[in-house]
Amino acid sequence: MDTWMRFMSSDGSIVFGRVEGAYLHEYEGLAQPVPTGAVLSLRALTPLAPCAPGKIVALWNNYHGLAAKLGKPVPTHPLFLLKPAASVIGTGEPIRRPGSYAGKIVYEGELGIVIGQRCRDVDVQQAEQAIFGYTLVNDVTAADLLTENPHFPQWCRAKGFDTFCCIGPAIVSGFEWRDAHLVTMLDGVERQNYPLADMVFSPAEQVSLISQDLTLEPGDVIACGTSVGVGSIREGATVSITIDGIGTLTNTLIAGTPDGAPAAAQERSGATANAV
Amino acid sequence: MDTWMRFMSSDGSIVFGRVEGAYLHEYEGLAQPVPTGAVLSLRALTPLAPCAPGKIVALWNNYHGLAAKLGKPVPTHPLFLLKPAASVIGTGEPIRRPGSYAGKIVYEGELGIVIGQRCRDVDVQQAEQAIFGYTLVNDVTAADLLTENPHFPQWCRAKGFDTFCCIGPAIVSGFEWRDAHLVTMLDGVERQNYPLADMVFSPAEQVSLISQDLTLEPGDVIACGTSVGVGSIREGATVSITIDGIGTLTNTLIAGTPDGAPAAAQERSGATANAV
Repeated sequence: MDTWMRFMSSDGSIVFGRVEGAYLHEYEGLAQPVPTGAVLSLRALTPLAPCAPGKIVALWNNYHGLAAKLGKPVPTHPLFLLKPAASVIGTGEPIRRPGSYAGKIVYEGELGIVIGQRCRDVDVQQAEQAIFGYTLVNDVTAADLLTENPHFPQWCRAKGFDTFCCIGPAIVSGFEWRDAHLVTMLDGVERQNYPLADMVFSPAEQVSLISQDLTLEPGDVIACGTSVGVGSIREGATVSITIDGIGTLTNTLIAGTPDGAPAAAQERSGATANAV
Repeated sequence: MDTWMRFMSSDGSIVFGRVEGAYLHEYEGLAQPVPTGAVLSLRALTPLAPCAPGKIVALWNNYHGLAAKLGKPVPTHPLFLLKPAASVIGTGEPIRRPGSYAGKIVYEGELGIVIGQRCRDVDVQQAEQAIFGYTLVNDVTAADLLTENPHFPQWCRAKGFDTFCCIGPAIVSGFEWRDAHLVTMLDGVERQNYPLADMVFSPAEQVSLISQDLTLEPGDVIACGTSVGVGSIREGATVSITIDGIGTLTNTLIAGTPDGAPAAAQERSGATANAV
């Protein structure tokens, strides 16, 4: 198992690499990471989301426990929506309530798959090889919007706001997800604690089946869906999601930026449109 | 009005610029396009989609005519889904049937808004300024998937396949959309002919309202939704979408690539994940 993180350095540049003790061994690339030779002290670095996905594929109803609670059959193909790149923040960054939305905001603790190689129509064995590693995701949702319009469930809108995709703190390659549990704490009180083995589609099955639908690119993240225990977050509350072996992802909900200034999270994510 | 296009040159590089007669005046950037001084003959250039959006925001039910036909009220806020970057192709490139899907594939002729400046929480006046120009979109849809699962309408999956977002042939800045009609021809037979003035949310209203939900980046495209006349495409059929003043976007549906090779469209789109 290796632990990979991404940081902003004191000069404003973004560095990615393998963490060993108190140091970052810098690498370039996800598909075939190449060491640059640089070794940096973590003290001088500010954590960012561990990758800058071009898109986030977020699954719904991918745990037997949740399907049973919802009273719905488990799906025969992954059910997903897309969250945009600008929704991504890292651990320690604030989730911002949208200025235009006063309703319920909920946390959803999830395992995240980070893609290492471009995938299109890959089988399960190829999919396994294309997974760079695993991370944690808080798939934040403006829950009231899902049903606001009775004719069109607004999944992308409810889950696509800036800062509504918390990812981190690290990507762990070689992680054995089968024996792990995901625990979500809200202000120190346990709200979710479920075994990843209860997943309907395993990570490699998700990558294989989703790659029939769209091309997955290095750095893309699949949020594997949540299980029971989802709940609402009030302003000032802190959500911490932990999987032993990956770490803890911690974010606090704050009021929005009424002045309409670009979110700091987006400025820092390194995600840029490839305009022309 | 200026006409902007994007091409692959004979050496494989991608060039963007303003078209004048038989020549391309090369520019860099969308937010503040700067001429490079290069002037290239269009003869040596292969057209690409005129921009490489990081994401495509695709609206549903944004024409009074379609709402009346569907028997549904017009929405009070744009209803949208996201199409991924890898779904984009340009005029003349083939729409590929997914290897895993044998059902109905439909065309949807739409006006496309190309964003020129980052937008977050902008008002209608700011939104107007942030629009770089207008293009055409064929928002291709694997229609049977929308209702395949009774518990979750699969908008992103049905509309997110590689090659399912045809954009082009050009972006026209300063285009007066209010008096224009959109015409869709299927193998030379007119199937859609609707006035853009029938839109529920005008382009500037769409940009303003959607910018309350997510950050729009330069090069992003908003597909404004279609109106009546949507229909299915059979293998070998050609869809041509025209707005006078913008041009004609032409694409033919072909069988998929059963070998799982990366789609040529994606290789050529210039859209790359910003992985780390």
